[in-house]
Amino acid sequence: MRMSRLFGRTLREAPSDAQTPGHQLLLRAAIARPLAAGLYTWLPLGFRVAKKVEQIIRDEQDRIGAQEMEMPVLTPAEYWKETGRWDGLEPITFRTKDHNGREYMVSYTHEEMVMHHARNEILSYRQLPVIVYHFQSKGRDETRPRAGLLRVREFVMKDAYSIDADQVGLERAYASEHSAYVRTFQRLGLAAISVESDTGAMGGDLAHEFQVLTDVGEDTIAICENCDYKANMEKARRKLPDPAPIADVPPAAPIATPGVESIEALEASLQRPPSAFLKTLLLRTPKGVVAVVLPGDREANDAKLRKLLDVPQITFAGDADFAAAGGVAGFVGPVGLTGRVIVDSSVEPRGYVAGANQKDTHLDNVLAGRDYPDAERADVHDVKPGDLCPKCGGTLKLARGVEVGNIFSFETYYAEKMNATYLAEDGTRKPFYFGSYGIGVSRAVQTVIETNHDDKGIIWPFAVAPYEVHVVALPMNDETVRTTADALVSTLEEKGVEVLFDDREESAGVKFADADLIGIPYRVTVSKRSLQSKSVELKARASTEAELVPQDMAVDRLVDIVRRAREAAAR
Amino acid sequence: MRMSRLFGRTLREAPSDAQTPGHQLLLRAAIARPLAAGLYTWLPLGFRVAKKVEQIIRDEQDRIGAQEMEMPVLTPAEYWKETGRWDGLEPITFRTKDHNGREYMVSYTHEEMVMHHARNEILSYRQLPVIVYHFQSKGRDETRPRAGLLRVREFVMKDAYSIDADQVGLERAYASEHSAYVRTFQRLGLAAISVESDTGAMGGDLAHEFQVLTDVGEDTIAICENCDYKANMEKARRKLPDPAPIADVPPAAPIATPGVESIEALEASLQRPPSAFLKTLLLRTPKGVVAVVLPGDREANDAKLRKLLDVPQITFAGDADFAAAGGVAGFVGPVGLTGRVIVDSSVEPRGYVAGANQKDTHLDNVLAGRDYPDAERADVHDVKPGDLCPKCGGTLKLARGVEVGNIFSFETYYAEKMNATYLAEDGTRKPFYFGSYGIGVSRAVQTVIETNHDDKGIIWPFAVAPYEVHVVALPMNDETVRTTADALVSTLEEKGVEVLFDDREESAGVKFADADLIGIPYRVTVSKRSLQSKSVELKARASTEAELVPQDMAVDRLVDIVRRAREAAAR
Repeated sequence: MRMSRLFGRTLREAPSDAQTPGHQLLLRAAIARPLAAGLYTWLPLGFRVAKKVEQIIRDEQDRIGAQEMEMPVLTPAEYWKETGRWDGLEPITFRTKDHNGREYMVSYTHEEMVMHHARNEILSYRQLPVIVYHFQSKGRDETRPRAGLLRVREFVMKDAYSIDADQVGLERAYASEHSAYVRTFQRLGLAAISVESDTGAMGGDLAHEFQVLTDVGEDTIAICENCDYKANMEKARRKLPDPAPIADVPPAAPIATPGVESIEALEASLQRPPSAFLKTLLLRTPKGVVAVVLPGDREANDAKLRKLLDVPQITFAGDADFAAAGGVAGFVGPVGLTGRVIVDSSVEPRGYVAGANQKDTHLDNVLAGRDYPDAERADVHDVKPGDLCPKCGGTLKLARGVEVGNIFSFETYYAEKMNATYLAEDGTRKPFYFGSYGIGVSRAVQTVIETNHDDKGIIWPFAVAPYEVHVVALPMNDETVRTTADALVSTLEEKGVEVLFDDREESAGVKFADADLIGIPYRVTVSKRSLQSKSVELKARASTEAELVPQDMAVDRLVDIVRRAREAAAR
Repeated sequence: MRMSRLFGRTLREAPSDAQTPGHQLLLRAAIARPLAAGLYTWLPLGFRVAKKVEQIIRDEQDRIGAQEMEMPVLTPAEYWKETGRWDGLEPITFRTKDHNGREYMVSYTHEEMVMHHARNEILSYRQLPVIVYHFQSKGRDETRPRAGLLRVREFVMKDAYSIDADQVGLERAYASEHSAYVRTFQRLGLAAISVESDTGAMGGDLAHEFQVLTDVGEDTIAICENCDYKANMEKARRKLPDPAPIADVPPAAPIATPGVESIEALEASLQRPPSAFLKTLLLRTPKGVVAVVLPGDREANDAKLRKLLDVPQITFAGDADFAAAGGVAGFVGPVGLTGRVIVDSSVEPRGYVAGANQKDTHLDNVLAGRDYPDAERADVHDVKPGDLCPKCGGTLKLARGVEVGNIFSFETYYAEKMNATYLAEDGTRKPFYFGSYGIGVSRAVQTVIETNHDDKGIIWPFAVAPYEVHVVALPMNDETVRTTADALVSTLEEKGVEVLFDDREESAGVKFADADLIGIPYRVTVSKRSLQSKSVELKARASTEAELVPQDMAVDRLVDIVRRAREAAAR
């Protein structure tokens, strides 16, 4: 490919709203361009990267026997309504109607569509197990698209779906996708770790995310410093410290706290640490108002709460809700509160200071069980650095990560909602055991950039580089340089090497800066100076060293380098 | 691929609403399945066909130097509004809004998006010419999706866009895409002819369609029996016969025609042929009511009228329009009509019987020019079989066709509407010359089936067959048959042959019927009987003859057949 004809120009400066190094570089190196917030075009260079990423994902899916197919982007409302996700997904999806008034979703994922096809295509246990997958555009109406391709409103996802006769089959499929993901991310040059995660809007119970740890990530991951426990913040648990021996807790007694309406104010006023207080959150959910009681030094975990309450959304309660529950804003506490009360598992069996549900008043020595006996106990808090690992008791730390893949085990959740069954060997009808497995292509590409660059530009891992060799001719208007570079490029291309050829009439400074920015693994410079010693200059993007290679050995040398690099990348 | 695991089952009978042989076969052979009217899933077999079709299209685009990229499915309203197509395309497109109220179209095509990228990426004439393309899903809200994949509401189109500095460049790009299309359809096994066509909703002036002639087509093509003139009905012209010498036409005179409100009634009542009458259509357009005058034996051409009037849509006028124009329903004629009147070029300089715009009355001897002097003359009629070729005067015939591709030359139409310019060599800013070039993948696949089948099933051209060899083991529960077939399949697959292996425990009848239905080019049967003579049976799908091939020569023979067939398909 000749750069003089390449569609998409490099930029000296990134637009000021580019938020992360990867975002800046993908714009500067002409990898992708936005058409609107969260809607991106792959320019030709980026398209080649995306296709290589896609092919690696495909290879690994094919290796485990998954079958590729393709479902549409527009999906009829009727299937989503069978599982109840039509309403649940409304806030984060795009909808459309045809001119007859029929409704469609720009597909969020394709579980319902696969389940529908499965119930029509798979009649008998003899046709099981099956894994199908496709690469298809997904729509997500993100209110805040973020950081280039890290969070967009349309992206191509590889989504795979396993259909099994029973739990054992599902576990086998889940394990096989898990190992395909490990190989996939390895080949992509992504140091992804697998962490336990919440199933969120997907339904089901068991799920893992593949996270690449980087400061630009928006997820928080709890990682044990001792064992292999890793979990997304939404799911992370901790081992509770052994309770202190229960001393006699005196009866709860009111204390006057005029104008003291927050944990911070209590700290200042009573001179006790945050852990001495209870905070009580009144939350509004589609199923009514719920109170949540936590120690003053713990935060409520939205995902855990949504899971526990089985609701899609939770917001803070309003004034009317406070009145109805018998609470007074700023002085809410669990004692005497009406309605559903959840006490977090981190609340210890000791006395706390809590709101008295009375203006300017708190209660001291509030004891769970004794003073508010009807509360349900549940783990609804965020873990913190230094918490104990739930698996080994070691110390947890927190890290930022980008989720590059996720896998879900749904068991019979979808099959039951959609009445999707097959004829089992024993003559009865049984529901399908179902799993789904996603990787977003564009987020993977940007995460590669986030974790493979220096201050000059991208350093593509060989496996996903847009081209393999970047030939720079200096200067192009020198007859010998031009014909030598032309011949080198043609010979390399005939031998199947992917070459980007900088044939522009630009200065050495511009050309080298662009080569570093675009980040092709090997750069070959054909210059007047190198030709004086009958050589070309070879430099790996990842290295600072350049070497002179005799002109007549350049092709063989490059073909050999590329062959070895391809072999390594295919492993 | 083992058929026991293949996702998608063959059907003995096509659903009763399957309208064409291709539609029936693609459902029966598990090529595609509908999710809703006009929304189809490629099952794994069909997916392989679609990908081969896509790869052939890609090869031929790459061969002419086009660069692949990828634009999103959701396209912001703002770009469509720059060209005025946001409103114009409303009736046939899907729209959506995000939760902030911003509007998007499920993209109809991508001209506006390419033009937007071009004005940002291409600064100078040095970066021209460029051809870019992508494969991307398109939405079309067809009110009547039809015949399987022939007319759907979502499909993947390869759309290419040429950007040039001037008209000469554009013509070169247009010719080069035209020849890429000729090669593409040849390789796909489609006997496509290139015909002149209307630009319709696309804008611009020059366009060609590639049509495959088949009775299931919904387009009508005029073809000269003598020369190479071919045109879509929307565009087809004819040579008008030399006018008869103008005799003196007596003055127009009323004749009483009580209750005679149609051409048919006039024929019966006055005993004259349809060509003796004028019919006058009152049509409503977004620009007002227009009257169109044609001979009684000619039909108005909607596309020509829309083009002439520069309106997106035309409907018949209502009662109020008749009154306003001075016409009386059933007795409308050009004489005395107010408003815009178009007289079709096929109206000859002689007297006709026409409506008198007065109840129960017609006028005889109505002469164009004399009796309704303000009418504009234009070609707005359909050609008919037997009309004269506009190019050579030969005879036109009509045929049905499926449009499998189209190419458009827009000149500076889009660039001017979108203010998309580059810095020319002379230092001035000039608009881009623009063309666009489309092929719908799914329609191409079904057209291959429509033109390549017999009463037993599909007969895939080798180049696009889902697999190359179909191995049938009979019966699977015979140890020797099974191990022989297994070994044959493994060896063929190791040698890179694409094999579909019928390993199911089904009868010979079911297996052979499925093999004929699915239509893989070569079928190899491993049976107890063939193994008695240490042979396997080889049969080409397109042939009625089978032959026995010695077992130890089968692999070499098949590898050789496949190699030759691949070479032929790549030409």
